[in-house]
Amino acid sequence: MTETPAAQPTPEAILQVGLAFWGSKTLLSAIELDVFTELARHPLSLADLQARLGLHPRSARDFFDALVSMGFLQREGGTYRNTPATDLYLDKYKPTYIGGVLEMCNHRLYPFWSHLTEALRTGRPQNETRDGGLPVFEALYADPARLKQFLSAMTGISRGANQAIARLFPWSKYRTFADVGTAQGDLAVQIALHNSHLEGIGFDLPEVAPVFEEYAAQNGLANRLRFQPGDFSKDPLPNVEVITMGHILHDWGLETKQMLLRKAFEALPKGGALIVYESIIDDDRRRNTFGLLMSLNMLIETHEGFDYTGADCCGWMKTAGFRETRVEHLVGPDSMVIGIK
Amino acid sequence: MTETPAAQPTPEAILQVGLAFWGSKTLLSAIELDVFTELARHPLSLADLQARLGLHPRSARDFFDALVSMGFLQREGGTYRNTPATDLYLDKYKPTYIGGVLEMCNHRLYPFWSHLTEALRTGRPQNETRDGGLPVFEALYADPARLKQFLSAMTGISRGANQAIARLFPWSKYRTFADVGTAQGDLAVQIALHNSHLEGIGFDLPEVAPVFEEYAAQNGLANRLRFQPGDFSKDPLPNVEVITMGHILHDWGLETKQMLLRKAFEALPKGGALIVYESIIDDDRRRNTFGLLMSLNMLIETHEGFDYTGADCCGWMKTAGFRETRVEHLVGPDSMVIGIK
Repeated sequence: MTETPAAQPTPEAILQVGLAFWGSKTLLSAIELDVFTELARHPLSLADLQARLGLHPRSARDFFDALVSMGFLQREGGTYRNTPATDLYLDKYKPTYIGGVLEMCNHRLYPFWSHLTEALRTGRPQNETRDGGLPVFEALYADPARLKQFLSAMTGISRGANQAIARLFPWSKYRTFADVGTAQGDLAVQIALHNSHLEGIGFDLPEVAPVFEEYAAQNGLANRLRFQPGDFSKDPLPNVEVITMGHILHDWGLETKQMLLRKAFEALPKGGALIVYESIIDDDRRRNTFGLLMSLNMLIETHEGFDYTGADCCGWMKTAGFRETRVEHLVGPDSMVIGIK
Repeated sequence: MTETPAAQPTPEAILQVGLAFWGSKTLLSAIELDVFTELARHPLSLADLQARLGLHPRSARDFFDALVSMGFLQREGGTYRNTPATDLYLDKYKPTYIGGVLEMCNHRLYPFWSHLTEALRTGRPQNETRDGGLPVFEALYADPARLKQFLSAMTGISRGANQAIARLFPWSKYRTFADVGTAQGDLAVQIALHNSHLEGIGFDLPEVAPVFEEYAAQNGLANRLRFQPGDFSKDPLPNVEVITMGHILHDWGLETKQMLLRKAFEALPKGGALIVYESIIDDDRRRNTFGLLMSLNMLIETHEGFDYTGADCCGWMKTAGFRETRVEHLVGPDSMVIGIK
């Protein structure tokens, strides 16, 4: 066994990571306070920006200048403006907005993660269920406004990978697909936009239908994408040539993971493909930090969920009957695992 | 006005900062759980490490492998061990331990920062005082165990800068110094260790005396360093040739800052020097992210405190009567501002 050489942390590196929650929470509060949405309308002076956002004068300047120093705002002659990137991605009124997931982090995950030590000691989730609230998905699906926020958050975190799947998978060999646990439907949308010969299904609980259909229509895809209501824990999956599952398997324990892979196998024709994607951990479990931390987030959020390596997933696919499997990197921490029946 | 070119954040950079609290809290929990202190005794297998720390099996492996991927642990053939840096800096039984400040972050600042948005809207602190608890310093000084933890935390975060001050300032011109608000006394210790001709005073509230005296004795400096009890908000400062103030001024509002600079001026002889040091913000307020975020931490922790630029501090020193001022960078985000009477 050889050790992969890793940069040695200095005392400064230790302190930097230990205090990284300061910058993280500062960005999350900026999104909560609509800093970027306000500045997308027009650049503002310190006094005007502070007044628009309803901030106390004490720390407004430090707050905005901290955002400047982190590269999220620009300041010139006392006027603050968005950077091109924050204007594109953090203005709530643009379709390119990716802040939904960070709104959820601000309201939910940041405080829940303060109980990480307890979670590690007990193995129990630390979200709404900790104090007797509804399990997270039940709570979300019971509240249309929060559901829409959650589904839009999922779009924000996955668009880059969705576009990569739309481009990298050999879609020309297939005519139909279904995205299982489709949420807002961005993966289905990106696949259909990039492959005009395909017809697709978004499969999710019935409550998701209006959100999916609105999003498909916004993207001019109402004629090639349709919603099929269903519960993947009870119902069979749609009979199509390719099934995709993004950020689904990691929510569940091993038995449910294997059950879902079996269901996909059963729904596909011979030669059909299953694409599982999320932050697949590297097989040696020492490089994909985000995937490993995402698995700790599944500890915080679920009763049995965990993230896993490409080798883990290929093994489960083989057990489910898939004859051929492979792992392909998408973008950043995300990879897809492909199983061919 | 020209804009300093800053790296444009991509969507990934936005998500990375927004989710940085995951890695931050993972390191903080590892320190809380004694991961590094346990592994400093000897390397351990997954099962043994999990058992020693009392962790639930569900996520122990993900937790340790996340620490491997972040560069804080090494794993070889299934055995976990500290890196050279974490063994030196995060083992509680070594004098080089710097985890005190991160223990405080874990217990106090991480949850307090969840109220940053409220702090920005109201200008009010969000620490123990938020729910009617004692102001932070009163609470700390009333509890010897917590006081020692806090003072040791301050040592952890400032040792690098303390050593730089001991090396960079022209100490050969002077014979006596006093460190005001000395806490455990690491600045006084580093100055005295590096400059054997100097005699120094640690000045702080009487409760600090045993912690200071123990630390000075541990470093073999009991004969050149002595403790002088006093309250810098009421009492005059010691009459010495050089006064140092590290991480003091930023705790207070402008009036108290100016009062402390006046007191230092009054205590010094002509030609004497005042050294103020902390995370001094760059004059253009767009580079020292840590200093700007530290100022937001002062919002969370104090009623009027804020961090400031070198130009701000030089201006206040001039007003207090100092004839000559200059700013010198120390290490990382820290600089010192020197005033000569």
